[in-house]
Amino acid sequence: MEQLLPNCETLALEQRGPALMVTINRPEVRNAMSLKMVDELSAIFTQVENNNTIRAVVIRGAGGHFCAGGDIKDMAGAKNQEGEGRDNPFYKLNRAFGEMIQQVNESSKIVIAITEGAVMGGGFGLACVSDLAIAGPTARFGMPETTLGIIPAQIAPFVVARTGLTQARRLALLGLRVDAQEAQRLGIVHEVAGNEEHIETLLAAALDRARLCAPNATAQTKALLHRVGNENMSDLLDDAAEMFSTAVRGPEGAEGTMAFVQKREPRWASN
Amino acid sequence: MEQLLPNCETLALEQRGPALMVTINRPEVRNAMSLKMVDELSAIFTQVENNNTIRAVVIRGAGGHFCAGGDIKDMAGAKNQEGEGRDNPFYKLNRAFGEMIQQVNESSKIVIAITEGAVMGGGFGLACVSDLAIAGPTARFGMPETTLGIIPAQIAPFVVARTGLTQARRLALLGLRVDAQEAQRLGIVHEVAGNEEHIETLLAAALDRARLCAPNATAQTKALLHRVGNENMSDLLDDAAEMFSTAVRGPEGAEGTMAFVQKREPRWASN
Amino acid sequence: MEQLLPNCETLALEQRGPALMVTINRPEVRNAMSLKMVDELSAIFTQVENNNTIRAVVIRGAGGHFCAGGDIKDMAGAKNQEGEGRDNPFYKLNRAFGEMIQQVNESSKIVIAITEGAVMGGGFGLACVSDLAIAGPTARFGMPETTLGIIPAQIAPFVVARTGLTQARRLALLGLRVDAQEAQRLGIVHEVAGNEEHIETLLAAALDRARLCAPNATAQTKALLHRVGNENMSDLLDDAAEMFSTAVRGPEGAEGTMAFVQKREPRWASN
Repeated sequence: MEQLLPNCETLALEQRGPALMVTINRPEVRNAMSLKMVDELSAIFTQVENNNTIRAVVIRGAGGHFCAGGDIKDMAGAKNQEGEGRDNPFYKLNRAFGEMIQQVNESSKIVIAITEGAVMGGGFGLACVSDLAIAGPTARFGMPETTLGIIPAQIAPFVVARTGLTQARRLALLGLRVDAQEAQRLGIVHEVAGNEEHIETLLAAALDRARLCAPNATAQTKALLHRVGNENMSDLLDDAAEMFSTAVRGPEGAEGTMAFVQKREPRWASN
Repeated sequence: MEQLLPNCETLALEQRGPALMVTINRPEVRNAMSLKMVDELSAIFTQVENNNTIRAVVIRGAGGHFCAGGDIKDMAGAKNQEGEGRDNPFYKLNRAFGEMIQQVNESSKIVIAITEGAVMGGGFGLACVSDLAIAGPTARFGMPETTLGIIPAQIAPFVVARTGLTQARRLALLGLRVDAQEAQRLGIVHEVAGNEEHIETLLAAALDRARLCAPNATAQTKALLHRVGNENMSDLLDDAAEMFSTAVRGPEGAEGTMAFVQKREPRWASN
Repeated sequence: MEQLLPNCETLALEQRGPALMVTINRPEVRNAMSLKMVDELSAIFTQVENNNTIRAVVIRGAGGHFCAGGDIKDMAGAKNQEGEGRDNPFYKLNRAFGEMIQQVNESSKIVIAITEGAVMGGGFGLACVSDLAIAGPTARFGMPETTLGIIPAQIAPFVVARTGLTQARRLALLGLRVDAQEAQRLGIVHEVAGNEEHIETLLAAALDRARLCAPNATAQTKALLHRVGNENMSDLLDDAAEMFSTAVRGPEGAEGTMAFVQKREPRWASN
């Protein structure tokens, strides 16, 4: 399996059972987001989409930081960048990052973020599109963009979706940093670990839950959740009932309900 | 009053002052949702809609469980169900459940859920459309559908509306169960009782508040809240100002503001 | 600067560095909202919009209360008010209040509410459109409208945006009051102070953060946050990338990223 994944400069990849472990691997710059990293994350999420052996993608940073955001030094000479409007390299880099975030958000796989150390700017945005975010004790979250004279442009919508507008306004407009406990209170992360070992325990428990959930039903449920609020409610519920009817009569529904009646695990749990 | 309500196989009904107590009464299957139950809940909410003696509807389960969701054994032989697309019985059952949930969500009455024991699948969805949810100490909430190879199809939108997308993703995609304290933190329930007596105390306090709120103003406020986010904000506020102007000059506004000035309870409080 | 602000009957104004302190100044009626007050708040927010010396507007009530809402005594004789539909004075007053709330919500400045004592009805709505709300120990929040036979018409949408629909339903339909701690749990306020001195400490810290944030980047970020959920996501992200590209190459982006590299504060921090 692994050899089929793209070769990556900025990421380390490892498959553990049905989970693909993705380690952001630029520790010398606290895993700051480069265009190369954006491209590689995008390529991996494209490739796993049709890989049935992968149920979950776990994203973590090397060296104790998740991701410190964009590289500020790269931006400091920005005035000299040629190209107007959508032809400017900064437009392209920023939008490419946002497209990757959209792709991760809508991945049919279960996306788990292990957040430690700096979870800033673009890194904060990436954490905000996970299905499950676990924070380690050192995690610090924030949008420092406005203190740098710039804008949390691509991440703002995903932070609003994550925390609600109320908390996003405070965090973005004052350029604040919050710790793991406050991040949990604000809904940025779901679980907080007290130490490294606890992170592993929480991750193992989550992957064990992922193992029990039928792959296709999970993908369809995730797609359904993303449609809420963007469509007429009654039409959505009509479609959802068709999805239900198809699922309950399909192979996963037949196996899952039968396993329940027979008090055994469904077959997909041991794949 | 009670004799005017439909005769129910699956529900026990009792009017206590201005509140209709609805007990889901299939304790032998942890109050699992059947088509009969869906039809009876729908009939009751239709009937109370124009009954001015009822201000609040309180939903509770018999035997220590709220509602364990759909009946899995019924689903286990689903492959044999004839009928394609929207003619399939599973489509019809699922959508009928969703229509009932929509109806309860939009009821003009104050809907209170007393959640205990299993609050799963469809039962979780029903709890998520209440105006006030009180949890007892035994309550467990969850969407186990994906572990059964099926989809939380009709409830997904109401869970997202209740908890936000962030928490709904984690709960649905990992098929997790949460206890009363976590349910309160996630906004699924508003209040947690430590024991049976405490449930009654919290319910009595809520019904006493309901008694003080003008029936028509309450119904109009609930309808207004449901429109937020689905309409242009300025148009909504224009309409809302008309509703305000009509209400303040109408019988409830006249009585309510006069009672305030005269430091007495309004007349509707003793109905 | 101050002499350029409108003369106000109901408000006291003071500029402290880059912050305009607005004190609602009708303590004899717990700062109840009058048409005059609505007009004066609106005039101030219009005037500061193009005033580059003001970065933040801090709203607080005189005499220990934030704002008790509309004046109920004024409403008690409402039946006699002539004018139908949108010509009625109550329509006009209510809608004018809502327009002021919309204006404050969308102000390009950082809006901070210091909430103490009564934060009711219209006062609650005003608190709900702040970017940062700090609660003092005496603060009580609520929508008592339905207990008066009237409707929280103009504030309902802003409360839903603030707390989510779930909590707004409970608060509005039961006419409940919540204290500072519960208000923080529900997202109504962000920070809770234990006493007067603590309020000042939290406010000073917030204004120090505001000082570090670039004025134009902050205004653009706030406008962007307000667009989330009201537009197609991909189109919004396209626009946002243009905003980013313009900002990073503009004077604030150049100064902010250079200051970061040079490990100094940006120039706007000392304005």
